[in-house]
Amino acid sequence: MLLTILYVIGITAEGMSGALAAGRHRMDLFGVMFIALVTAIGGGSIRDVLFGHYPLTWVANPYYILIICVAAILTTRISSVISKLESLFLLLDSLGLVLFSIIGAEVARKMDYGFVLIITSAVITGVFGGILRDIFCNQIPLIFQKELYAGVAMITASLYYVLIEYFNIEILIASIITLVCGIILRLLAIYYKIGLPVFIYEDKQK
Amino acid sequence: MLLTILYVIGITAEGMSGALAAGRHRMDLFGVMFIALVTAIGGGSIRDVLFGHYPLTWVANPYYILIICVAAILTTRISSVISKLESLFLLLDSLGLVLFSIIGAEVARKMDYGFVLIITSAVITGVFGGILRDIFCNQIPLIFQKELYAGVAMITASLYYVLIEYFNIEILIASIITLVCGIILRLLAIYYKIGLPVFIYEDKQK
Amino acid sequence: MLLTILYVIGITAEGMSGALAAGRHRMDLFGVMFIALVTAIGGGSIRDVLFGHYPLTWVANPYYILIICVAAILTTRISSVISKLESLFLLLDSLGLVLFSIIGAEVARKMDYGFVLIITSAVITGVFGGILRDIFCNQIPLIFQKELYAGVAMITASLYYVLIEYFNIEILIASIITLVCGIILRLLAIYYKIGLPVFIYEDKQK
Repeated sequence: MLLTILYVIGITAEGMSGALAAGRHRMDLFGVMFIALVTAIGGGSIRDVLFGHYPLTWVANPYYILIICVAAILTTRISSVISKLESLFLLLDSLGLVLFSIIGAEVARKMDYGFVLIITSAVITGVFGGILRDIFCNQIPLIFQKELYAGVAMITASLYYVLIEYFNIEILIASIITLVCGIILRLLAIYYKIGLPVFIYEDKQK
Repeated sequence: MLLTILYVIGITAEGMSGALAAGRHRMDLFGVMFIALVTAIGGGSIRDVLFGHYPLTWVANPYYILIICVAAILTTRISSVISKLESLFLLLDSLGLVLFSIIGAEVARKMDYGFVLIITSAVITGVFGGILRDIFCNQIPLIFQKELYAGVAMITASLYYVLIEYFNIEILIASIITLVCGIILRLLAIYYKIGLPVFIYEDKQK
Repeated sequence: MLLTILYVIGITAEGMSGALAAGRHRMDLFGVMFIALVTAIGGGSIRDVLFGHYPLTWVANPYYILIICVAAILTTRISSVISKLESLFLLLDSLGLVLFSIIGAEVARKMDYGFVLIITSAVITGVFGGILRDIFCNQIPLIFQKELYAGVAMITASLYYVLIEYFNIEILIASIITLVCGIILRLLAIYYKIGLPVFIYEDKQK
């Protein structure tokens, strides 16, 4: 129940961030809704398709599509307000990232996958929506060049895995602990601008 | 039977439009065939993968692949003629959009999905081929910034749904009515340059 | 057994080529690993998803993910050495292309698909990883404009098909013959700069 509410908050926040990205590229209303949907449910869809995990979340619950579309259209009306609420938005975006990572880890765990696939599933669910958003806006995905974004997904999923498999903590409690730790980690990474090392390669051909 | 003929016309027209886009980016023959295939059958493939609706159309009927490849190669030979037949081409492209939307709606309806998924399926089938074409040509999808393209898919699918579910009209007749109305709507939208409102967002960060 | 060893060499080589591409776009370590994974196992994943061929290779064998990630990180350490080994690298890349094409052909053959789908499967498996690498790096896929890359996949798969279906040669022997012929063909195409004709289309609108 709590997780469903958090999930709706998560897809709403991701959908709004997608809508803003669409607005930066001067898209029409359909583009805004499309980018919002891709950002919010693209990661989970890719995960489910790769794992053959049918039906997809939004096919089982089509009203999620409506929620995201409404959030996207709303964003176009209140974008001036949103730009003032930047820190709230950053918090919601962190919530989305961490929550989606936990959901991804749990989906893989329920399918009896091992540690590597659980981490992979968490990363795909957590970050692929943002990657698709940037691809459809025709720019290099930000998360390939930015702060500890995917790293947060990996650490979050590892913590979740350890709590459940080694400490036998209940799923709900493990989720909440992981959620809080993950969000704090993400905010710290943003605040201190912690990032992964960057690899620069220049070959002679070009 | 009629629908199969129209479908072949639709994928041929879409394939040719993909081949032209590839030519604008100076691709080689493989690129031309690849972009043609993605444009013509990409939307339906994405829909089927998301819904777990196997086998895909072109897997069940591989000769569709051949038809599109032949159409693509032909396009490279007769491109000077095509540029003179612009209005015929626009008509075929509209036929493709509307027909694919109807097929998408029908696939979802047969899977007993509700209204939201039927519309979603119609839009994915109708417009995702064009989106993929633009992504593989490395440009922002045109349909995010252009005339009532996705809107036509939505309205077409809604009309089709209402005709069948509320008026109990036979599938074939409902398809033909929807096809004619959809194409007229699309041509009117092009002629009067009707489009969705555009959302422009500029944040201070950039 | 031999094929597994060759497969590991193939994904390692493809993963390293992906890591170098990521370095050219100044990505962080996550970006490097992501692009490496997409390049190495993206083609096979797309093929399996389109054909509903579950579980995917890397889901059944998650240690492939680890091998590619290690190869990617290693690449960032020894990139100066790699640029000196250009010809070795070209050989490994050709091995990857030809081997992936054979694997793609074999997957389709085992699913009792006909000639068109076998060729399609070989091309998807052989070249889609490189296409995705370029899309995620935000550039027009190189293989749409370069030497006989996809052509090698098609010819390789055709040879493999003929050897098995018409000459009843054992799979292992047919694989080795095809592998050697395919690599030679690819190297000849690079050496003599053999390519497909390019289609240039300029319309008046732009």
